[in-house]
Amino acid sequence: MPFVMNAWYVAAWPHEIVADKLLARTVCNEALVLWRTANDSIAALEDRCCHRHMPLAAGALEAGTLRCPYHGLRFAADGSCVEIPGQQRIPANVRVRQYPALQRHGWVWVWPGDAARADPALIPDIQARNDHPDWTAAGGTVYMKGNYLLVHDNLLDLTHETYVHASSLGNHAVVDNPIETEVDDERVTVTRWMLNHEPAPFWKAALQHANGYAGACDRWQIINFVPPTNLVLDVGVAPTGTGAPQGDRSKGVPSCNLNAITPETETTTFVFWAFARSFQRDDAQLTRTFVQRASAILEEDRQAIEAVQCVMDRDPARKPVNLRIDAGVVAARRIVERLIAEERTATGAAP
Amino acid sequence: MPFVMNAWYVAAWPHEIVADKLLARTVCNEALVLWRTANDSIAALEDRCCHRHMPLAAGALEAGTLRCPYHGLRFAADGSCVEIPGQQRIPANVRVRQYPALQRHGWVWVWPGDAARADPALIPDIQARNDHPDWTAAGGTVYMKGNYLLVHDNLLDLTHETYVHASSLGNHAVVDNPIETEVDDERVTVTRWMLNHEPAPFWKAALQHANGYAGACDRWQIINFVPPTNLVLDVGVAPTGTGAPQGDRSKGVPSCNLNAITPETETTTFVFWAFARSFQRDDAQLTRTFVQRASAILEEDRQAIEAVQCVMDRDPARKPVNLRIDAGVVAARRIVERLIAEERTATGAAP
Amino acid sequence: MPFVMNAWYVAAWPHEIVADKLLARTVCNEALVLWRTANDSIAALEDRCCHRHMPLAAGALEAGTLRCPYHGLRFAADGSCVEIPGQQRIPANVRVRQYPALQRHGWVWVWPGDAARADPALIPDIQARNDHPDWTAAGGTVYMKGNYLLVHDNLLDLTHETYVHASSLGNHAVVDNPIETEVDDERVTVTRWMLNHEPAPFWKAALQHANGYAGACDRWQIINFVPPTNLVLDVGVAPTGTGAPQGDRSKGVPSCNLNAITPETETTTFVFWAFARSFQRDDAQLTRTFVQRASAILEEDRQAIEAVQCVMDRDPARKPVNLRIDAGVVAARRIVERLIAEERTATGAAP
Repeated sequence: MPFVMNAWYVAAWPHEIVADKLLARTVCNEALVLWRTANDSIAALEDRCCHRHMPLAAGALEAGTLRCPYHGLRFAADGSCVEIPGQQRIPANVRVRQYPALQRHGWVWVWPGDAARADPALIPDIQARNDHPDWTAAGGTVYMKGNYLLVHDNLLDLTHETYVHASSLGNHAVVDNPIETEVDDERVTVTRWMLNHEPAPFWKAALQHANGYAGACDRWQIINFVPPTNLVLDVGVAPTGTGAPQGDRSKGVPSCNLNAITPETETTTFVFWAFARSFQRDDAQLTRTFVQRASAILEEDRQAIEAVQCVMDRDPARKPVNLRIDAGVVAARRIVERLIAEERTATGAAP
Repeated sequence: MPFVMNAWYVAAWPHEIVADKLLARTVCNEALVLWRTANDSIAALEDRCCHRHMPLAAGALEAGTLRCPYHGLRFAADGSCVEIPGQQRIPANVRVRQYPALQRHGWVWVWPGDAARADPALIPDIQARNDHPDWTAAGGTVYMKGNYLLVHDNLLDLTHETYVHASSLGNHAVVDNPIETEVDDERVTVTRWMLNHEPAPFWKAALQHANGYAGACDRWQIINFVPPTNLVLDVGVAPTGTGAPQGDRSKGVPSCNLNAITPETETTTFVFWAFARSFQRDDAQLTRTFVQRASAILEEDRQAIEAVQCVMDRDPARKPVNLRIDAGVVAARRIVERLIAEERTATGAAP
Repeated sequence: MPFVMNAWYVAAWPHEIVADKLLARTVCNEALVLWRTANDSIAALEDRCCHRHMPLAAGALEAGTLRCPYHGLRFAADGSCVEIPGQQRIPANVRVRQYPALQRHGWVWVWPGDAARADPALIPDIQARNDHPDWTAAGGTVYMKGNYLLVHDNLLDLTHETYVHASSLGNHAVVDNPIETEVDDERVTVTRWMLNHEPAPFWKAALQHANGYAGACDRWQIINFVPPTNLVLDVGVAPTGTGAPQGDRSKGVPSCNLNAITPETETTTFVFWAFARSFQRDDAQLTRTFVQRASAILEEDRQAIEAVQCVMDRDPARKPVNLRIDAGVVAARRIVERLIAEERTATGAAP
């Protein structure tokens, strides 16, 4: 299994799961059908009728149960069968796998692994989460034809901004300033401070919009990798000399870029992202502008990641060369590999 | 080999094989080129020149022989080579495999297996065959991206009519009445009688058209599985109380739905079907109406079968759960498995 | 490896590699990025950044070096890294593979194998090469979805002209006259003379255009196979009785069809071809006419070769039957097989 299975993954935005509709989505190779129950919780079943393997997402909801469109079996939200047309007795093996699912932090999460271990407390407490009272967040979903680890690599080494995002986030301040990488068993943090420089276009516009400032800035990038696949980027700029490096970001534009990376298959990935800010929070036009700009930036990332996947597909055994900037990349990959190996050991699977 | 090879399969409608034209068709993974000979018999050769593997169906007929379009070798209808351009002597190994083929019951049949065993008497004597003097039949071909056994499953368990064909064949009478399944080594028969109920839309229209009747009906479904892949459905309705259950169908609309299921590959299938009736036989408009309605019904089946195939492709090892309604499905699959195993044993192939 | 790797292959036309542009091309499964350097030589690197496997062809040239578009590493034409953004020291393993490449005979050649063995003297001295002073040559590239050996087969047995190119090169004189095949370890030559016959349409038009002649002709086809994948066809016609068979072609239309067959992958091939003539050399309209006609002929070959590849894909283990006309085909395949086996032995690879 190329994924950590015993973990919470974002499967959807809340608005994707609406009354009386079914959503088909695959998470870590597990095909799911999701819907919203009458009591506003999330139901998630395997998207396969146990009888003849019909995709249940092609069916319909009937009084809170899901009817298979082929032979009419009906299943409750817990996967138990409540009706077999033409048969009174319902055998115990007529049942569809249920997946733990819930809504939290403005996202819908599912647990593709062992349901007995699905503790909601394990959902990461993301800074600036979508529903945080101190932040205004908005975002979207990008579907990438690439392995999820390539998205980690992308976000853990932001030197690519200078080249991939030259018209928005990139400038030489990014590559000219060193990173500091902190690693423990649970987390990776990559920090870069860029003091007293002409801001890159994206941040220049933000500073100007926020407080009419057009001068030099101090910029920070603090990338937090929360296994198995969450990347929370604490980013922003402040006018040089207003104390941001010392901890006072109040004069700047403190922002947070959330990324919940959800593997669909080994070579396709959903990136659920949000851009949150704690300044000018009620400016709806600014929210739209940030969503548009961030979407354009992610589109550039998508192209790079898909190009890399294509090259790797030609010869998957080839190893990349790691540079000094890859300290966080390497550390995050090690954590994921270790978690996958631990799951294999725990289940007695071949390593 | 996932197919019974020593059997007759429908390869085409007679009108598909016309003078001076070649038809390429694959049956049980065997690529064939078919044509009509001067004496109105059917020629079937492997669609591959033995010389450089050119598809012969891209060639042309010349005086009853087939010329390869690449280097001009000519083959007779029996597969023997009659000309090698640039060479006088024709070696014995310059020969293309011939397949037994003939026209019978209004269809063209081929035998993909051992030609020595191809006895025309083995072609099933289908009730209400296309050219039967007592029936008017018309039909068509549906190409499905699914394994042929899924089509068997579909036809041997008609409870799906209630859900897949709700606007035509389906109503609750189907699922509310039990089936009776008879099995022997050679055949499976699944019978369901539905007495005294409001007819489903398709049958309601038929009764009204046939004799202006608009009341309750008795309906019968007698599904005959004739191995390896023929399904003959004796179906119809009659006004309740006119004696159909006792054997007098003369006041009703006796019909027969022929299905010759021809595997193209392991995951693609041709369904050659006909809908035959023994009432109002000369009503050409009624014939067209039945073809249109049956085509729409088969389109619904195609969508269900292809959806199931997609789900199964994700994890082919997963087993379905069998219900009481699957008695015929299970029995038919067992017969096909046994026939395939017997062929393997006979040819000494690995099981 | 299904290719001879230690050999020169045509990778491009000179006009495809222009200043400040990168060309991505795959030769023998090796993905390359090509460009023209300031001193007009050809640079060829692996199209994969060693760092994160980005395709370098998506990057840009900067002062004669190639910058990776992902994290900005810069490489010189010899594959050495000259800049790592954010890092001063450049480790020795940060390097991209360089492939020998040069322009010769009006084509750009690359050597996909061991660079140490890439001697420019091994580029075949093609008769009537594109830049030969005694010939006017023009041509193009055809991309075929077929194995390169199928293109060899096609060109080494021209009996197919009678059938595939019936409206241009083909007539019965081709199949009615025998071939003579000479084989040694290094070359295969297949010769066919067709004396005193009505010329095929292509040659009839050429003779008429060249000297107003409309009568019978003597025609020659001398096919030279130069391993691993070059096919030089010395072809033409002359009025019967003017001495062509005896060696005087001056009254005819001596022509040469160059074919540099470059495998892209095992199932896709570039055919770099040219049609050269030593008569009416300055007639630009005639040059265009020949290019158009030859393109149409190659399109017919492409269709045949791709059809054969499709048939072979169904069952790659099936062997073709060889005829007398295949003497050159068989000999050329043996040479290629021997060269591949010798390379395997030399590198200690499994046979």
